[in-house]
Amino acid sequence: MKSPADLLLLPQWVVPVDPVGTLTDHAVVVQDGRILEVLPADAAQARYAAGQTLALPGHALIPGLVNLHGHAAMSLLRGFADDLPLMTWLNERIWPAEKKHVSDAFVRDGTLLAAAEMLSGGVTTCNDMYFFPQAAGEAFLQAGMRATLGMIVLEFPSAYASDADDYLAKGLALRDDLKEEPLLTFAFAPHAPYTISDATFGRINTLTEQLGLPIHTHIHETADEIRDSLKQYGVRPLERLARLGLLGPNFIGVHAVHVNEAEIDLLAEHGCHVAHCSSSNLKLASGLAPVVELMRAGVNIGLGTDGAASNNRLDLVSEMRMTALLAKGVSGDAAALPAATVLKMATLDAARALNLDDRIGSITPGKRADLVAVDLRGLVCQPVFDPVSHLVYVAGREHVTHVWVDGKLKLNDRRLVDLDSDDLTARATYWRSKLTQQG
Amino acid sequence: MKSPADLLLLPQWVVPVDPVGTLTDHAVVVQDGRILEVLPADAAQARYAAGQTLALPGHALIPGLVNLHGHAAMSLLRGFADDLPLMTWLNERIWPAEKKHVSDAFVRDGTLLAAAEMLSGGVTTCNDMYFFPQAAGEAFLQAGMRATLGMIVLEFPSAYASDADDYLAKGLALRDDLKEEPLLTFAFAPHAPYTISDATFGRINTLTEQLGLPIHTHIHETADEIRDSLKQYGVRPLERLARLGLLGPNFIGVHAVHVNEAEIDLLAEHGCHVAHCSSSNLKLASGLAPVVELMRAGVNIGLGTDGAASNNRLDLVSEMRMTALLAKGVSGDAAALPAATVLKMATLDAARALNLDDRIGSITPGKRADLVAVDLRGLVCQPVFDPVSHLVYVAGREHVTHVWVDGKLKLNDRRLVDLDSDDLTARATYWRSKLTQQG
Repeated sequence: MKSPADLLLLPQWVVPVDPVGTLTDHAVVVQDGRILEVLPADAAQARYAAGQTLALPGHALIPGLVNLHGHAAMSLLRGFADDLPLMTWLNERIWPAEKKHVSDAFVRDGTLLAAAEMLSGGVTTCNDMYFFPQAAGEAFLQAGMRATLGMIVLEFPSAYASDADDYLAKGLALRDDLKEEPLLTFAFAPHAPYTISDATFGRINTLTEQLGLPIHTHIHETADEIRDSLKQYGVRPLERLARLGLLGPNFIGVHAVHVNEAEIDLLAEHGCHVAHCSSSNLKLASGLAPVVELMRAGVNIGLGTDGAASNNRLDLVSEMRMTALLAKGVSGDAAALPAATVLKMATLDAARALNLDDRIGSITPGKRADLVAVDLRGLVCQPVFDPVSHLVYVAGREHVTHVWVDGKLKLNDRRLVDLDSDDLTARATYWRSKLTQQG
Repeated sequence: MKSPADLLLLPQWVVPVDPVGTLTDHAVVVQDGRILEVLPADAAQARYAAGQTLALPGHALIPGLVNLHGHAAMSLLRGFADDLPLMTWLNERIWPAEKKHVSDAFVRDGTLLAAAEMLSGGVTTCNDMYFFPQAAGEAFLQAGMRATLGMIVLEFPSAYASDADDYLAKGLALRDDLKEEPLLTFAFAPHAPYTISDATFGRINTLTEQLGLPIHTHIHETADEIRDSLKQYGVRPLERLARLGLLGPNFIGVHAVHVNEAEIDLLAEHGCHVAHCSSSNLKLASGLAPVVELMRAGVNIGLGTDGAASNNRLDLVSEMRMTALLAKGVSGDAAALPAATVLKMATLDAARALNLDDRIGSITPGKRADLVAVDLRGLVCQPVFDPVSHLVYVAGREHVTHVWVDGKLKLNDRRLVDLDSDDLTARATYWRSKLTQQG
């Protein structure tokens, strides 16, 4: 008598991430949105009567990718301002555009577009930080994508909120509203040490302890912000956060480009996590993050795309390649950050940073079925010696064919299941014309 | 009365590279394999009676990409050895495999696979260096791809040749054989200063002057080769080549990672060209080439993929993005290497290095019709503010839909016209099984 299952996947290779390694001719069994079992294909077909069986010849099945830092709605600003020095980019292009255009509708449309892009490229979870997170949350739910919504906080007013208290109140209300949604989780997202006062950090620290949520903040992205902090506070930003008691295993520092040895140790000692955004750091000329040193010290590192205004792809597949190559070039060690390590950073390690590693990040029985099939049969992938190496160094996001979130099919043979590409393109075109209008 | 034309292309944007800029709603007219005229679409349709008219809505038409450094046949070693220190990689993996397996048949199959990959990704010309260049030449001709064949020279024996004289004799015979082929040109390809004696460099220098051909050689890729040269010759490799009289406007130095200010000036003064291979330099941990400084000094720089054992993609679209981002990160200037500059490096500047800029490298009337259409309508490309920025920072090679070489269609709606993907995959699989056989 066979056991029932919703879905039986039969890829050529399963790369579970946990445990490490590649399984050939194995099946992944999904039931009620969960991974039920990973076992040899023959045994699986003998043991299970599945509602659906999908053969995936020449495909590798990997855990859904976890984007540890994004501003999803900024997809509408993709390529809006390139090849500019950072302060010109921010002051003359990005901030004025945001001030004029960012609204509930902008964030909903931009987040939908970003979710469509991410799902198509195998990203099933996003750690997001932007204005109007309620609109973002609704968009992620519509897309059926997993997200950690940042309860964003800044001191200065925006179309979304008037001051830090208002941001915090709105963030907490959002969480009250959406906290029963199984795909959504929440983080405090104080924007950065240079936009947040000590008093506000203090409030956030108290709330974090009460609610047990992650803190998601930009940190040591540029040399300038460190100079400014030394001038204003007499200490570097990380030291300031340490003194305020913010560093701990719930702290996700984004970028950490300019960190000295003592700061690397500080992050490691407190069990902090780093969201590494290699493309964005290069494009904005922020610098080269010491990824190898951070990892050697024991800091847990996930990968982030950052927003589409500074990357301009929400593409963790190319981010894996960029991270692996850059770490080798910067460290001078061609053996640094091997493919399997980078794949773990883009999945399980990022999930761990979000405190979601009991739920996602690997193809492990009991976890939610966030799964991605990558077709390695294309000519550009030939020959295949090692599928894990190919996932990082050869494949592109265009080789992703199927994506499941929580066991639900989101990308079917490269086509989005729930989202209408024509409609999303029309929305993007609408916002482009608004953004390029004179006056 | 309308004028005849073979082909009328109607993309949304034409990016000619020369002149600089983007033309909207223009047509490119092709006749007898040449670009006849670039003019407004309306005027073109009124003036020409074309054998074929192709509307390319939402596409950008760009010049064919020129890969300034490759070892095409190494496509068969794609992912064969990753994440290893350079000397382990070479001594324990690549060289033994080459010694055992590289043959006429290996090079033909590998070059065909590489040509298929490059054409699919918009690369229409390749500056190649490998053993058995005759087999490579025949493969490029079969693929209908433009190539500069390197007449490779080494001092040590291989399956291909026994000593430097033999390499040279075979190279010159190859040139005699194929020099009437319009798609093929030739370069002397002494492998590197550490594998070539002064005497052989001297012979090559004489031959180069007689025949007016480029010299294509690896130079200053690693710090080690410089140390070794100081020990053996008392000077750094570039200084040695300068003394031997090899530097000049026909000199293409590959990599140039470790070049000091004086060497940058030396390259500039002699009108030398550099083939910059960002991904390969990172992956082998060779270092970070001073691209911005080289360019500022006036050195002409093209982009190269290097071989698939060290990249592992023969993909100039991602190489453009990597080069632009890396230059910003390394120079600390987010305005360094803007998109249009990088596109020029991957086309006209590389053509110039090969002394082919009178023939290819830009969409300029009179030049050969090496053309590439890139579809920017996909969701991941939305919205489009500037197609040139999108070509570099957003698009992937998978967005290339049509490719012409010498006016002949090579890729039609993402399908290779002349090459059989299944057959190439079977050949790659055959060589993989040979390469992974024990003993």
